[in-house]
Amino acid sequence: MPKDSFMDLAIAEAEAAGARGEVPVGAVIVLNGKVISRAGNETRALHDVTAHAEILAIRRASQVLTQERLTEADLYVTLEPCTMCAGAISFARIRRVYIGAEDDKGGGVLNGARFFEQPTCHHKPEVYSGFQAVRSAKILRDFFKTQR
Amino acid sequence: MPKDSFMDLAIAEAEAAGARGEVPVGAVIVLNGKVISRAGNETRALHDVTAHAEILAIRRASQVLTQERLTEADLYVTLEPCTMCAGAISFARIRRVYIGAEDDKGGGVLNGARFFEQPTCHHKPEVYSGFQAVRSAKILRDFFKTQR
Repeated sequence: MPKDSFMDLAIAEAEAAGARGEVPVGAVIVLNGKVISRAGNETRALHDVTAHAEILAIRRASQVLTQERLTEADLYVTLEPCTMCAGAISFARIRRVYIGAEDDKGGGVLNGARFFEQPTCHHKPEVYSGFQAVRSAKILRDFFKTQR
Repeated sequence: MPKDSFMDLAIAEAEAAGARGEVPVGAVIVLNGKVISRAGNETRALHDVTAHAEILAIRRASQVLTQERLTEADLYVTLEPCTMCAGAISFARIRRVYIGAEDDKGGGVLNGARFFEQPTCHHKPEVYSGFQAVRSAKILRDFFKTQR
């Protein structure tokens, strides 16, 4: 499956999250060419500030594999991960992170804390940004427009 | 209840975590002078890299209050929170963070990403460090000694 198809799945998760009234961000975790988990943001539904798409996808993938570490797994996410999610991605030993849109206000990978560049970061994944960025960003923009 | 007693509870959670074979870190969340949640690290038991004491305590407190935000709540934690937990603490709008020992290798509050000082951090709690730091650090040191 090509990278764009995995990002399509992440975008579908983002759209589904938006339809539930959640901030529309979606994430997919892929291991050996197969999707092992997918999630959209669920912070409101779960009353849980940690229920970002990336965190849920990582936790679900770990349940599937019954192991903490997701070595060799890749993460596709529609928006640049925040600092919290960057930490979780590093702890989970994710191999590659494919990002849709950058997030200069809340991102923690390419902006802000740039966690993977810190000496306190003990596993740095490869990071690729700009996959279907326009589509990912538009979903977020449209969502916040309707919320106002 | 004085601050030292809340930190005593956090230390008890850390010790209980260590006895379960988990990295011994404990956290307690206090609202209006009452403990609303407490947790020790459970990353191994849950196969979940995000199951740090702080994250579990925040998630449990949110379940108790059935709300995402823990405004006016204070967190007592035996070790300086990592970058991931610092993000969660900020999102949860925790009022004050009382830290036991500093963590120059993995901390994200007083070390490393220093997330609360970043422009991408939109809620900065008050931070107080050094509460029973020697005891908190000793529990960790003793744990890693027995693991070797």
